Amino acid sequence: MDDALKQHRDQIDAIDEQLLKLVNARAQHARDIGSLKGEGPIYRPEREAQVLRRLLALNQGPLSAEAVTAIFRGVMSNCRALEKQLSVAFLGPAGTYSEEAANKQFGGVSAPVLCNTIDDVFRMVESGKVDYGVVPVENSTEGAVGRTLDLLMSTQLRICGEVTLPIHHNLLTNTATREQVTTVYAHAQSLAQCHAWLNQHLPNAQRQAVSSNAEGARLAASEAGAAAIASRRAAELFTLNVLAESIEDDPKNTTRFLVLATHDVAPSGQDKTSLLLATRNIPGAIVDLLAPLALHGVSMSKLESRPSRNGLWEYVFFVDVEGHCQDAALASALQEIGQRASLVKVLGSYPLAVA
Amino acid sequence: MDDALKQHRDQIDAIDEQLLKLVNARAQHARDIGSLKGEGPIYRPEREAQVLRRLLALNQGPLSAEAVTAIFRGVMSNCRALEKQLSVAFLGPAGTYSEEAANKQFGGVSAPVLCNTIDDVFRMVESGKVDYGVVPVENSTEGAVGRTLDLLMSTQLRICGEVTLPIHHNLLTNTATREQVTTVYAHAQSLAQCHAWLNQHLPNAQRQAVSSNAEGARLAASEAGAAAIASRRAAELFTLNVLAESIEDDPKNTTRFLVLATHDVAPSGQDKTSLLLATRNIPGAIVDLLAPLALHGVSMSKLESRPSRNGLWEYVFFVDVEGHCQDAALASALQEIGQRASLVKVLGSYPLAVA
Repeated sequence: MDDALKQHRDQIDAIDEQLLKLVNARAQHARDIGSLKGEGPIYRPEREAQVLRRLLALNQGPLSAEAVTAIFRGVMSNCRALEKQLSVAFLGPAGTYSEEAANKQFGGVSAPVLCNTIDDVFRMVESGKVDYGVVPVENSTEGAVGRTLDLLMSTQLRICGEVTLPIHHNLLTNTATREQVTTVYAHAQSLAQCHAWLNQHLPNAQRQAVSSNAEGARLAASEAGAAAIASRRAAELFTLNVLAESIEDDPKNTTRFLVLATHDVAPSGQDKTSLLLATRNIPGAIVDLLAPLALHGVSMSKLESRPSRNGLWEYVFFVDVEGHCQDAALASALQEIGQRASLVKVLGSYPLAVA
Repeated sequence: MDDALKQHRDQIDAIDEQLLKLVNARAQHARDIGSLKGEGPIYRPEREAQVLRRLLALNQGPLSAEAVTAIFRGVMSNCRALEKQLSVAFLGPAGTYSEEAANKQFGGVSAPVLCNTIDDVFRMVESGKVDYGVVPVENSTEGAVGRTLDLLMSTQLRICGEVTLPIHHNLLTNTATREQVTTVYAHAQSLAQCHAWLNQHLPNAQRQAVSSNAEGARLAASEAGAAAIASRRAAELFTLNVLAESIEDDPKNTTRFLVLATHDVAPSGQDKTSLLLATRNIPGAIVDLLAPLALHGVSMSKLESRPSRNGLWEYVFFVDVEGHCQDAALASALQEIGQRASLVKVLGSYPLAVA
């Protein structure tokens, strides 16, 4: 073996020996913390977010931010597993983005429970059959996930975390060359998100909106001259070639998931709070309702109206604001909002998603 | 925050800072090695096996062997990814044991390619469309995977690794209690493997052999009073409850997979060599053929006969022996076998599976 190679390998061996000692020492501390906590939750999203943020700030490479968070999520997951195997419910079947989100957040899920519906995920957590649930809440292709919002209205569960996954669109086809593509199938939103790319590279192909990108991929797999805009995963599932990667006009597309639990999360320093508000349907009422946020300097990152299901109010509003509900500014704003609104429900305060 | 908790967390923070420096230093060495190697393969199964074995020998806990290998496979995978994202083909759909095996071996696969058939996995590696392939070769339920053996006869690919996964059988049913179970579906082999447990716990239930455990799970999901013996994954896929876990009589059941590549692997110190032998179909010929192994002190771990497909010989034999084909003893034995056999093909020498 080459001398230079041997030297590097010897140094890696020395590093690994130190790494091994350190991860075991870390695991022992995690264990000691577990016995201090007694019956409290093993999984502390606010603490894990703090650990990851700190490491990302310290990281000087060559490992990327994604590599650092992946490695440390794995370390934390294995330390946690010494105390308890967390069970996590999410939408199946295997291979969904929900599974990817759950694996990302928990650094691998040792006891996954794949559910058929979002309702089932809520029920599994509510009944205590699993420790956590992961549900999609905003899909960059199809917008807000209505069922999740509806279930959040009536559940007693708390949002204890959010996960974002980057979404890439790809041109999938079994056609040999781009010139032979005559039709492009995709969800209308995906077609729109790849508008510029399609104009430039496939100006003559017909764009055909279908119910989902998966349906588009299915069609592309069976029709000559057809292509689909969909995920890499869809290419695998329907055995299509990836003719062009990441063709979305805005490369910052993400899909967002919520982590559900039966308990609240302490502040992590960079948090978000999700609120459910209801008011009488008087034009301008919502503006009035939200005024205390501006007054107390609380930024709003999302406002989404949704028909109420219970007949008491016509509309409810899902509002995401910066900060934790224990923060003084947000707490004051919430108190004032509470005096004006028919309903204020804090769905949860949780750490902002870490890369 | 509790003082003791804060102390532990401060120490974890200090450990994490060291861990971060070390994994980055490790990544830099891996990068330097990459530039030394030039065009050679990034993934070195023999080196990774050596690293893991050494760490397992050093490990004093509290982290388990599985946790240590999982953490370090993640670290090595992220170091490797700095140089190249490895593409790996395996049998889909998502959620198969093949996917689990690929993720285990590579510490997570950044560019997976899910194939519909074992043939496709071979073709993807042979055509250079992916770097590696993972195929099942021995299934604890259904025995040898014939198609893999047949394809190994004609391929130019080399076996560069093996992966073993522990297999657990579970009793899956939507029946509320064990007493209400009247029929148990499973592959004949799985029924046999849970014989003692079934005798003890379900003496009156009818045992019904079906084509696969997945088929049994499908039936159990639709029939009242029915149960299936299958994996946890099947419980998730078919939404069945796990009424009893790990009911196999022998808890050491494993399924074995092979990793396929276009290149050979250097010795790791604890290796296995897979051979394909053919001889004229004279009774006793195989015993005669294998005599050099015993003579040179080479242990055989597997011998499996298989009808030849090409008409030149009636049978071929798949033989696994201890050691690397570069080892003196095995090299001598192979030379002598070569003088007696109609065909000797070294399918590959590769590191023994690490936990």
